[in-house]
Amino acid sequence: MRISELSRRSGVPNATIKYYLREGLLPPGRATAATQAEYDETHLRRLRLIRALTGVRGLSVAAAKQVLDAMAEHRGDTHELLGIAFGIRPAGTGAPGTADDDRSAGHPEAAALVDAMGWSVSAGNPARQIIDRTLQTLRSLDIEYDWQALLPYAELAERTARHDLDRIETITDPLEKAEHAVLLTFLLEPALMALRRLAQENESTARHGGDGPASTARPAPPEGHGP
Amino acid sequence: MRISELSRRSGVPNATIKYYLREGLLPPGRATAATQAEYDETHLRRLRLIRALTGVRGLSVAAAKQVLDAMAEHRGDTHELLGIAFGIRPAGTGAPGTADDDRSAGHPEAAALVDAMGWSVSAGNPARQIIDRTLQTLRSLDIEYDWQALLPYAELAERTARHDLDRIETITDPLEKAEHAVLLTFLLEPALMALRRLAQENESTARHGGDGPASTARPAPPEGHGP
Repeated sequence: MRISELSRRSGVPNATIKYYLREGLLPPGRATAATQAEYDETHLRRLRLIRALTGVRGLSVAAAKQVLDAMAEHRGDTHELLGIAFGIRPAGTGAPGTADDDRSAGHPEAAALVDAMGWSVSAGNPARQIIDRTLQTLRSLDIEYDWQALLPYAELAERTARHDLDRIETITDPLEKAEHAVLLTFLLEPALMALRRLAQENESTARHGGDGPASTARPAPPEGHGP
Repeated sequence: MRISELSRRSGVPNATIKYYLREGLLPPGRATAATQAEYDETHLRRLRLIRALTGVRGLSVAAAKQVLDAMAEHRGDTHELLGIAFGIRPAGTGAPGTADDDRSAGHPEAAALVDAMGWSVSAGNPARQIIDRTLQTLRSLDIEYDWQALLPYAELAERTARHDLDRIETITDPLEKAEHAVLLTFLLEPALMALRRLAQENESTARHGGDGPASTARPAPPEGHGP
């Protein structure tokens, strides 16, 4: 297909595609004339992946290029590929962090949680920082909450991750697998949180809502429903 | 305490506290002189709740006032209170949506999912829209994904919500309960997604990582580990 059709089918403007070509994010098409080239389905898929990395995951074009290059290097090694796709290992560094390097020292609560779960997680996984920060924020608001309180959630996260990997497992092409890993990891997040909120309403209705759904107006009960 | 101490302990600037007082978000203190008032722990807690609503949940000051007023009205009715806190029912409307009102028509996939789970969830729950939007986005990227694919996640969300409610259940004061519901619902979200990413790395290591942890440098294997 011509660049104009590639643009139409991907929804990416012509000028942006040319920019990706110049930056080496998108491999060149097959030249058919001095100023014309043919593109195929691999270009379309690659464009989708670029958009997912820069849009959904919010990477800069330079960072997206690093990820794509790293993916190309590790083609075939599913574990390395998923590590890059999930954002666990910084693309372009030959030596990912080891479990006992300096970075884990900064996130003691995440480290304790990972230990307690028996998880094998690199010290460089940026999710560690989020765990420690969240717990600090909650405590700054006088809410008693430590990593042990997260353990039931960690067990559910473990089962969630199993579903995630099951889903990706069915794909054989490594690049497509990486693309799905990126898209499903990042795009599903709002939906997973939405499911939690729906389930919260349902649970609240079941516990406190009497016989009607949450939306049914009813008089207030005479007293609280403490444990 | 004086307003200056209230400011120091809450971390909210003096001028902002005065603004909240003028807008009626914060009840007035006990006047001790023509231009002085005493504030107590209830003011401090209220300030925390205002900051959680405007900061973490991103409500405008006017919307936060509506939520706080609605909370005051429903004091004692845990279910109504949690509905407001979770953002399920728009504050200030006397009649929340019923299960079969117009709004559910716009989100058929969320409706199918809620039905399949046997959940009791109001049509006005904004999480419904997020479900349908996410699925549309995934399909626009040629990823086959429908509401049925979300069912395993919905079951995990149900268990997550049970932990959420268990946690709030231990609190007897209705306002504090609502505060915790808001804070734990919204502040925990990044941590829950972080747990998923840690678990993804662990699961990927278990499936594809050989005998070493993901962080251990090792040579790339000669071929892929596809299913």
